[in-house]
Amino acid sequence: MSLTVVGSVAFDALETPFGKRDKILGGAGTHFSLSASFFTQVNVVGVVGGDFGDAEWAVFERHHIITDDIEVVHEGKTFFWSGRYDYDMNTAHTLDTQLNVFETFQPKLSEASKNNRLVFLANILPMLQKEVREQCETAEFVAMDTMNFWISSMKDALIETIKVVDCIIINDAEARQLTDEPNIHKAARMILDYGLKAVVIKRGEYGATLFTRDSYFVVPAYPLESVFDPTGAGDTFAGGFMGYLASQKEITEETLRRAMIYGSVMASFNVEEFGTERVDRLEYNEINRRFSDFKRMTHFDEIPFERSVSA
Amino acid sequence: MSLTVVGSVAFDALETPFGKRDKILGGAGTHFSLSASFFTQVNVVGVVGGDFGDAEWAVFERHHIITDDIEVVHEGKTFFWSGRYDYDMNTAHTLDTQLNVFETFQPKLSEASKNNRLVFLANILPMLQKEVREQCETAEFVAMDTMNFWISSMKDALIETIKVVDCIIINDAEARQLTDEPNIHKAARMILDYGLKAVVIKRGEYGATLFTRDSYFVVPAYPLESVFDPTGAGDTFAGGFMGYLASQKEITEETLRRAMIYGSVMASFNVEEFGTERVDRLEYNEINRRFSDFKRMTHFDEIPFERSVSA
Repeated sequence: MSLTVVGSVAFDALETPFGKRDKILGGAGTHFSLSASFFTQVNVVGVVGGDFGDAEWAVFERHHIITDDIEVVHEGKTFFWSGRYDYDMNTAHTLDTQLNVFETFQPKLSEASKNNRLVFLANILPMLQKEVREQCETAEFVAMDTMNFWISSMKDALIETIKVVDCIIINDAEARQLTDEPNIHKAARMILDYGLKAVVIKRGEYGATLFTRDSYFVVPAYPLESVFDPTGAGDTFAGGFMGYLASQKEITEETLRRAMIYGSVMASFNVEEFGTERVDRLEYNEINRRFSDFKRMTHFDEIPFERSVSA
Repeated sequence: MSLTVVGSVAFDALETPFGKRDKILGGAGTHFSLSASFFTQVNVVGVVGGDFGDAEWAVFERHHIITDDIEVVHEGKTFFWSGRYDYDMNTAHTLDTQLNVFETFQPKLSEASKNNRLVFLANILPMLQKEVREQCETAEFVAMDTMNFWISSMKDALIETIKVVDCIIINDAEARQLTDEPNIHKAARMILDYGLKAVVIKRGEYGATLFTRDSYFVVPAYPLESVFDPTGAGDTFAGGFMGYLASQKEITEETLRRAMIYGSVMASFNVEEFGTERVDRLEYNEINRRFSDFKRMTHFDEIPFERSVSA
């Protein structure tokens, strides 16, 4: 028993410059739990409609993800999102959003989900995130995501939620919007001041940054010559990050740093193919090899400069 | 005898959101040599007018920079550039450019300058860069900068120059423009294929990246809560990079990586105040302390993940 995620389980329709898919498995809860499942046991809390089929359930089963808390509303339809990416793969253009059964989603946590050591609140209504957090009384480390829509429409409620978690994982534009502070370092410090232990800022092709009270840690993005489909990259990052932490006995500066690397590794695989396709068939040796690549591309020896007379 | 730089020595007038200066020491050759002087002996090749005064010469003298190859055209005026930065400190808005004596600049290298082990060709006309490179027959490692203007107006001549140097240090927009390739990793590989040993891509607030044939190394930018004046940051980076390399017996993967860090350290100081002000009074312990900060903000231990039954 280790990690719970509450979030969307969905169908996506995607168009990118490299191809399209009409209806594939997606959603924050899906991408997160699939990524985390490589590191730990995951309980996923969500809701789907009667159209959620065997092929979709099979993805969760293959990765031993516990889906007891995915409610099935047989007469309803699963959350559907349709989007397009142009050559700037950083920006998703939403073509259609059908909330369906997700519109009235009320997370129902089993005792198992409530008692996990770590909890991730994927991007849902801030008040729901707070309710879930309060149900997980014994959780050691709770992290959350959010989005621009909640920041602009209900910042106060969102801040009340931020105050009761340990970590927030958001992108740089969201951090700036949340704080009205353009400098990302100042913005992160302002968010830490809500009482968090850690703030993780995702910066797309520029990597990710971890801010804690006493430290600052930067991870570059993995150097990909092409990004095929960025959908779910942020949730896949969060899944690797939280999944790795859940696998460790303690959450320390050292484990947080390695969690940042594992998050980046998992996200780098996610974007190589459509939806969950690449992560679904990922193997441990691929993960560890890419972890080593991150070490290789950031390592240098610290040798203080001393000016010699001859230099 | 160690490092030669050929480039502009100028006066700048600057306006930033934090203040203004009417006429301060600037120019690529100035920023570069000042930065490099902390690591090695520098010969600077340039041209100034009769208005170049004792206060300006004193900056070079304080740092034991050899100015024998700065030609003085007494009847002329020194290159003058005036620019403004708004809150987006990444973009300089040019208000005025007076080339003055720089317009007909013909670099004249003494034997000392020609015989240095390392040479940096700051941003000047590509054909002049090539001429200088050919005069430095015994140089072990020659690096160059360029700018968007030369890329758009004389790409062929520029490429002929790139083919005879060992390293190019440019920003990401320039790399994309030079290669017509939006992906920075592909662009860097295309530039390496001109026969270079190293391509350094400067990415402003996102740091810098080193590409060699066999490796890839990423340095984040130093986390500054405010950038006061970015003028000369790129040349200061190049000065730290080349100056450190000149101080080392060999140019290897390891020394190139540390050179990237020293370049980033020097650039981070440069932007803290106007023009050369901050670097002019920099001390070695400040440089080494910030080098250690870079180690601290990028270091993690490589421990391969092994899934245990309990996790």
